[in-house]
Amino acid sequence: MASEETSQFLKQSAQLREAVDAALARYIDFDKGCPSQLRKAIRHSLLAPGKRLRPILVLLAAEACGCDKGRAMPAACAVEMVHTYSLIHDDLPAMDDDDVRRGLPSCHAAYGVATAILAGDALLALAFQVLADQIRPAEITCRCCAELAAAAGATALVGGQADDLLAERTEGTLSHLESIHSRKTGAMIYTSLRIGGRIGGASNEQLAALDTYGRRVGLAFQVIDDLLDARGDEQVLGKPAGKDQKRGKLTFPGLLGIEESERRAGLLIDEACRALAPFGDRAGSLEALARYVLERNR
Amino acid sequence: MASEETSQFLKQSAQLREAVDAALARYIDFDKGCPSQLRKAIRHSLLAPGKRLRPILVLLAAEACGCDKGRAMPAACAVEMVHTYSLIHDDLPAMDDDDVRRGLPSCHAAYGVATAILAGDALLALAFQVLADQIRPAEITCRCCAELAAAAGATALVGGQADDLLAERTEGTLSHLESIHSRKTGAMIYTSLRIGGRIGGASNEQLAALDTYGRRVGLAFQVIDDLLDARGDEQVLGKPAGKDQKRGKLTFPGLLGIEESERRAGLLIDEACRALAPFGDRAGSLEALARYVLERNR
Repeated sequence: MASEETSQFLKQSAQLREAVDAALARYIDFDKGCPSQLRKAIRHSLLAPGKRLRPILVLLAAEACGCDKGRAMPAACAVEMVHTYSLIHDDLPAMDDDDVRRGLPSCHAAYGVATAILAGDALLALAFQVLADQIRPAEITCRCCAELAAAAGATALVGGQADDLLAERTEGTLSHLESIHSRKTGAMIYTSLRIGGRIGGASNEQLAALDTYGRRVGLAFQVIDDLLDARGDEQVLGKPAGKDQKRGKLTFPGLLGIEESERRAGLLIDEACRALAPFGDRAGSLEALARYVLERNR
Repeated sequence: MASEETSQFLKQSAQLREAVDAALARYIDFDKGCPSQLRKAIRHSLLAPGKRLRPILVLLAAEACGCDKGRAMPAACAVEMVHTYSLIHDDLPAMDDDDVRRGLPSCHAAYGVATAILAGDALLALAFQVLADQIRPAEITCRCCAELAAAAGATALVGGQADDLLAERTEGTLSHLESIHSRKTGAMIYTSLRIGGRIGGASNEQLAALDTYGRRVGLAFQVIDDLLDARGDEQVLGKPAGKDQKRGKLTFPGLLGIEESERRAGLLIDEACRALAPFGDRAGSLEALARYVLERNR
């Protein structure tokens, strides 16, 4: 990607990230009833500096369908709430046992295990409250709630995490690894795009295109994440690197080697960009984002 | 309550419980993507023998509004999923550390902490998936989703649990104890009634009546639960008794004494029944249920 395109994409995504952060902060300004430790824990994790990849995908998918991005902002916040809840629970001692997240102490490291479990629970519930309260027309809201719940549920995010925990102790194949990531990371990514598309009034053809784009980008994103961990790039990762190998965790570089993993990531991004054809010029930002996923690895 | 009324109520609620259990089992018959340990853990907790109080309240509230109970069944299942998720997480070692629930090993005792956390997470998400998929018209669905999410969230169920954990180490007052229970138990109970009412087409006056009934019954239910624990009635409780006192937990008998707690429970149930006036004869089952909450203590 030319460096001018990169810098333009970085500028746009920084603006979107700022808008998302401001909206997120408003949604967790609870009235009384939320104990102060719980409120602080939710704030600590939700407002920690993140890439905001999923909310940005919601907003850009809505834009690609010709819709004002602001209309999709509540849904963008909802997907970030679900993502943050999953990070809080994944980091727990009984799960991945990570003490650092997004460059800060993880939620349980800062507030204790009980509060961290509850902060995650509260964020998962809040995501549906925001969607159901703020997105209209109601038929679209119902589709968005059902798809977000499915992406967060036993056959997607939660199921992928459960298999990922087991995979630390198994040999594993490429298809098993892809199945874990399509559920653990992929589902939330393509669902973010579909939700943005639905709010933007996407046709069925456009929804299918967003779905394909999301599945390819999601998998590429995970391959790159594994590469960054293998190389020990803690700054880009925002968490300690090299842990995958120490745990004997199933990874793409571990199964395919570094070069083949890089080649696959490149192919996936090419396929993702080709899927955007039905949107014409309006998908420029989504294309730039896909190309940038590769850039993270350089 | 006359013993004929009691036996009629018990017969009806056993039928409803059976219908709820059958519907719950259908919703967790996941297709592939859900690892088998996770599926077993969800099944273990969701289908354990429970009173099904909240789903029965959904169904009876819909009936009181003149609606066929079957139309509210998906919502009845959704509230039971949220309730079961909260029991699984409350039982965790980092929270209340309970090894027995509903007469069976608690979820983490049977399947480990990581799987129990994930089983709870999956049930919370599934509740919204079922509501959003199965309840129509869509405007009603949105109100039901938003109210259920609020009842499960940081200012209600989760906030109440967070304060309850702290309350084990504080002196506490009656108003603090009531505030904990109105969030931890009460919110899900009056929300179950409101959701059933909304699906049944309740007027605003009827919704307010269901809300009042729910708040009174919910608090009475908690007072009785504390009394059963204080008396050591493990069979009615379905879990080990006497734990509240051992932990120095804030309870109604601890604050008010046994007699005054009993008197309050009776007054709350009387108020609950009076609130049902706008429904006339159609609220007979709700009234019988309220009276039966007191019976548990005899």
